[in-house]
Amino acid sequence: MSHLIEEVRKNQPLIHNITNQVVMNFTANGLYAIGASPVMANAKEEVGEMAALANALVLNIGTLTDMQVDAMIVAGKAANQAGTPVVFDPVGVGATTFRTQSAQRILEQVKVTCIRGNAGEIASLAGLSATVRGVDGAGDVDMETLAAQAHQKLGVSLVITGAQDILIHRGEKVILSNGHPLLTKVTGAGCLLSSVLAAFLAVTDDVLQAMTDAVSYYGIAAENAANEQQLPGSFQVSFIDQLYNLKSEEINRKIRMIRGA
Amino acid sequence: MSHLIEEVRKNQPLIHNITNQVVMNFTANGLYAIGASPVMANAKEEVGEMAALANALVLNIGTLTDMQVDAMIVAGKAANQAGTPVVFDPVGVGATTFRTQSAQRILEQVKVTCIRGNAGEIASLAGLSATVRGVDGAGDVDMETLAAQAHQKLGVSLVITGAQDILIHRGEKVILSNGHPLLTKVTGAGCLLSSVLAAFLAVTDDVLQAMTDAVSYYGIAAENAANEQQLPGSFQVSFIDQLYNLKSEEINRKIRMIRGA
Amino acid sequence: MSHLIEEVRKNQPLIHNITNQVVMNFTANGLYAIGASPVMANAKEEVGEMAALANALVLNIGTLTDMQVDAMIVAGKAANQAGTPVVFDPVGVGATTFRTQSAQRILEQVKVTCIRGNAGEIASLAGLSATVRGVDGAGDVDMETLAAQAHQKLGVSLVITGAQDILIHRGEKVILSNGHPLLTKVTGAGCLLSSVLAAFLAVTDDVLQAMTDAVSYYGIAAENAANEQQLPGSFQVSFIDQLYNLKSEEINRKIRMIRGA
Repeated sequence: MSHLIEEVRKNQPLIHNITNQVVMNFTANGLYAIGASPVMANAKEEVGEMAALANALVLNIGTLTDMQVDAMIVAGKAANQAGTPVVFDPVGVGATTFRTQSAQRILEQVKVTCIRGNAGEIASLAGLSATVRGVDGAGDVDMETLAAQAHQKLGVSLVITGAQDILIHRGEKVILSNGHPLLTKVTGAGCLLSSVLAAFLAVTDDVLQAMTDAVSYYGIAAENAANEQQLPGSFQVSFIDQLYNLKSEEINRKIRMIRGA
Repeated sequence: MSHLIEEVRKNQPLIHNITNQVVMNFTANGLYAIGASPVMANAKEEVGEMAALANALVLNIGTLTDMQVDAMIVAGKAANQAGTPVVFDPVGVGATTFRTQSAQRILEQVKVTCIRGNAGEIASLAGLSATVRGVDGAGDVDMETLAAQAHQKLGVSLVITGAQDILIHRGEKVILSNGHPLLTKVTGAGCLLSSVLAAFLAVTDDVLQAMTDAVSYYGIAAENAANEQQLPGSFQVSFIDQLYNLKSEEINRKIRMIRGA
Repeated sequence: MSHLIEEVRKNQPLIHNITNQVVMNFTANGLYAIGASPVMANAKEEVGEMAALANALVLNIGTLTDMQVDAMIVAGKAANQAGTPVVFDPVGVGATTFRTQSAQRILEQVKVTCIRGNAGEIASLAGLSATVRGVDGAGDVDMETLAAQAHQKLGVSLVITGAQDILIHRGEKVILSNGHPLLTKVTGAGCLLSSVLAAFLAVTDDVLQAMTDAVSYYGIAAENAANEQQLPGSFQVSFIDQLYNLKSEEINRKIRMIRGA
C-alpha cells in the first residue's frame, strides 16, 4: 500500500488548529511543508463554522485560557457533528490544576479521535501518574503497560511519543523507533506532530494506518535533518525542508517498526 | 526616480501592526530586514497612542477576536486622525460569518489607504464571490475585471496578489509578475507583504508608487531566495536575507511589469 | 571559577515566561539551546502554580493586556513567596501611558531580582527620560551616570543593553562590550536575553556573576554567529546554533570586560 503522505499531498486537507501561541508559526509552516493547508482560528464566534469546514481539528492546550477552552469545546462539538477527526494534545497536563481540569472538561464534551502526548502527560490524563514518576528518565517504567492501561481508561486511540513511540488503537499496538534527540531541542516538535497526525487522519478512515504513517514520516524526516545539521537552529530549518521533501520509498526503507499491528 | 526602498532604509518608519498570532514573529523580522521598525501592540488601552506615534498602521484579521477588532477600530481612527496610512489585510474573509462581519465593521469605521488580499478575499469583501469561484485555480476568471469591480465597490486602493499581482489606485492599474510559488509554502507571506506595503506607504504620498515598489521588491527578493534555496524551510531564511540585501539597481533590472500605470 | 553555562546545562532550570506573543517561539528555542527548560503559561488560573514550580520567572510586557498584567502580578507574588528569581523586561515602556502604568503596577507589587532593558526603557522606568533623549544615538549621554541614577531610584539590579552593556548590582558595576549589531535586526533579541538571564539566575545566588556570565555568553554567541552569517535570517539561525554550542573556554578567551566588579 502506498504511504498516506501521497494522499496528504494530493488532497491538501484543511487542518484547523486551536493551538498554543508558542508554536503557531512552526505548526503552520510544518503543515504547509507536508502539503496540508493550515488554518488557525480561536474565537468562539467562528470556531464552530471553521471546524465544520475543516478536514481535521487539532486542540492543543499549551497556552490555554478559559476562553480558549470554551472555544475548543465549541469547535470540537462541530467537528464531532460533521464526523471530522479531532486530535487532542494535552500539553503540560498535570503541571497545574487548571490544565488538568481543562483537559478533563474537553475530554468530557468532545469525542476525540486520537490523543498525542509524552508518557507523563498521558499518564496524568489517565490518572496513572503515581505509576510513572520519572518516566522521561531512565526507562525503568514499562511503557507498554502504561499505554495499555491509559488506552483502556481513556477509551481513545493514543500516540505516546518518546525514545520509542507507542501507537495504540482499539487494542492494537504499533511501536516505532524513528526520530532523533534534536527534536527535543525544538519547541513545538510534539505539537507539530499532533497537527501532522491530524492531516494524516484527514485522508483515511484507517486510524492506525494514519498514526503509523504520520509518526514514521515525522521521525524519518527528523533523522534526515539530523544527518544534514547537528545544531538546533539549523536542524529546525532542515527539518521543515525534509518534511517537504521526503519520498515514500525512502520511508519504506527507513521505518523502524519494533512491533507492528 | 530612485526606488522607495532607499527611503525606507533611510527613514526606518515605525510600523504599528495589529496582526495575527501566527505571523507576528515573521512580520517583525521581515520589517527589520527591509529597514523598518516594527511595533506590535494590541490592547485597546494603548493602540490609539501607539498608532498616533507610528508612521503606518497594519490591521490584519488572521486570528481575530471581538476585543481585537475593537482595538483595530480604535487604532484605525487614531491613524486616520493623524493622517497616517492604514493597510488592511482581510485574512480568510468569507470563510466564516464572524470574519466577514468584522471586516465590514472595520471598513465602515476606519478609512483604509490600501487593502491587500488574494482574489478570493477581495472578491468576498466586495460581495463578488459568486463571480470568482475557483479563482485561485485555473485562471479562467478575468482577474482584471474583478480588480476593477472590487475597486469601484470598495472605493479603496487594492493590491490583489496571486500568480500575477494587480495593483489599482484611483482607477490606475499596475500588473506585476514577480514572485515565486515557494512563497505559498511560507505561512504569513501575504501578511508580511501587507506590512511591507505599510512601510513603503509610510515614506511617500504616492500610493501607486509605494504599492509598485513594495510588491516588486518583495517578489524579486523571493525570486532571489528561490534561486538560493529550493526547500521551504531554507527558502524562508534566505527570503529574510534577501529582503535585507536586495539592491535598487537589481530591482530595476528584474522587475516584470505586465502593464504600467 | 567555571562559567555558569555549565550549571545551566547540568541543571536544566525550568524558566516560566510570561512574555509577548512576538517572541514566544524564539524565546523557547533560545532557552532550549542554552540547556534550560522553557515553559509559557499566561492564564491567571495557573500562573501562580507554574511560577512556584519554576526555577525562575520572566515578566515581559511586549504585548501586554490588562489581563496579562494581572497574571504577571499573581505569578510574581508566587515567585517571591517561593524565593524564585524574577526578571522584568519593560519592553517599550514610555511609549504609551498604559505601558508605563502597567510597568509601575508590576514593580509596586512584585519584588524583581533584575530588570533588563535598553537605556531608553530604563530611563523611562526610573523617571529620568528627560536626561537621556536620543540615548540610542550618538553616545553623547553618560550611560554610566544613567545606570547609577536608575539603580538608585529603582533599587533593583539592572542590565542595560546597548553597544556596551552595563550591569549593576548593589552598587557594583560591570561593563561588557561583546555582542554584534546584527542582534538589532532580530526581533526579540533583547527579550531572549532577559530569559537567558533568568536561566543563569536560576543556578546561582550570585546575581552579579549570573548577569555577567549570561550577558557575555549571549554576546559572544552573537559574535560567533555574525562570523558565520552576515545576513539577518541566516544570522538568527546561526545564533541559536551558537547558543547551543559555545564552550566555556571560548568565553574566557573572548569576553571583553571594560570594567569588572
